[in-house]
Amino acid sequence: MAKLYVIGIGPGGKEHMTLKALETIKKCDVIVGYTFYMELIKDLIIGKKIVKTGMKGEMERCRAAVEEVEKGFETCVISTGDSGLYGMAGLVLELAEGIEVEIIPGVTSSFCAAAEVGAPIMHDFCTISLSDLLTPWEIIEKRLHMAAKADFVIALYNPKSKGRTENINKAIGIILNYMKLTTPAALVKNAGREGNDRRIVTLGTIDYDFIDMMTVVIIGNSNTYIKEGKMITPRGYKL
Amino acid sequence: MAKLYVIGIGPGGKEHMTLKALETIKKCDVIVGYTFYMELIKDLIIGKKIVKTGMKGEMERCRAAVEEVEKGFETCVISTGDSGLYGMAGLVLELAEGIEVEIIPGVTSSFCAAAEVGAPIMHDFCTISLSDLLTPWEIIEKRLHMAAKADFVIALYNPKSKGRTENINKAIGIILNYMKLTTPAALVKNAGREGNDRRIVTLGTIDYDFIDMMTVVIIGNSNTYIKEGKMITPRGYKL
Repeated sequence: MAKLYVIGIGPGGKEHMTLKALETIKKCDVIVGYTFYMELIKDLIIGKKIVKTGMKGEMERCRAAVEEVEKGFETCVISTGDSGLYGMAGLVLELAEGIEVEIIPGVTSSFCAAAEVGAPIMHDFCTISLSDLLTPWEIIEKRLHMAAKADFVIALYNPKSKGRTENINKAIGIILNYMKLTTPAALVKNAGREGNDRRIVTLGTIDYDFIDMMTVVIIGNSNTYIKEGKMITPRGYKL
Repeated sequence: MAKLYVIGIGPGGKEHMTLKALETIKKCDVIVGYTFYMELIKDLIIGKKIVKTGMKGEMERCRAAVEEVEKGFETCVISTGDSGLYGMAGLVLELAEGIEVEIIPGVTSSFCAAAEVGAPIMHDFCTISLSDLLTPWEIIEKRLHMAAKADFVIALYNPKSKGRTENINKAIGIILNYMKLTTPAALVKNAGREGNDRRIVTLGTIDYDFIDMMTVVIIGNSNTYIKEGKMITPRGYKL
């Protein structure tokens, strides 16, 4: 019986893909994913049946994938980053009935972004998506308040998107109720893939124009500092 | 000039290692890590100089790694999971002076644990280490309060260790101020490596004896549910 795989390919470049993700893509007959992601792995999927949909086609993709498995084809659904966090694993499991599903984890973009600017995510951290398409803004606001109050390192996903350009400004405004203006922050665009660019700033000097929908924003905790151009959150060792 | 790499090898099995982690280990002359981690990658490091230390030898390991680079050897420090989150990247950057350091991210154990029980980490989430060796317990408690109040999915790392077996009970007690007893939770032992075992339970039915220092505990948010033995946190799509 054919199986459905949900694969986290990491942030995009093949180098950050796991061996299991790579091998599973190779053995599948059908590859299902968002058009942009398929472009990232185009060398791996030559000769396979490809089912692509545009943004917001998530339900359509999952249903198409389930149908392919029911026809008997080994099929995978591609997520960038991890297959779970803000990925497709949950929706696939919600929609799949009576077929076997395997979830394959991957490197999430904030870990890749962190590696590119030093070691900001060393300690307790949280991720918050600023997209209010699927989550009411009030819930996002509450999480921002609690995260900053608890002194978590915070990784903000989807800081901007078409038509929602002010969420990042609002988010930083909330965080500044608890954190100093001098708290280090990293803006990393296209972490781990082509078009990579980054800025290390502080909460008081964020370049909002630099941030786009492909940017992850990492905000340090109260112990985070900058050393030789790297952002470091101490784990707590006495040096 | 030789370079120092800090590599996240994922939770342990080679399958969840990234291509970059694998290739970097292969090209290094010297491999530095905690004895237990070296065992996980022993097939990859045959013929290389190995610097091993036991638990709590983190500073010693980092200093040894810096020395090897200064002698001219391509050297890597191994972390399990990600190289950042509760890993070695920060300490290496804190100690290294005047040498080039590259951080290579990896799959953290909670993502691997999540994949093994379904898709619990689909939405805003946080990680909290219950080890109070390097972090005062009051800070950990505050983060538990805020995380549960904000309805984050919560991944608890280091739920137990020798001599500290009650932290997990205290943590769940705090979380129960905000979350229902029926909230799903997953206990995953040795995620992504040999000895793997798991339980899907609720906050009210946690098997505390099952949990050991190699276990990750994932607690759902208020929307998480169980379907066909899988733990699922909805992303918010209307089905």
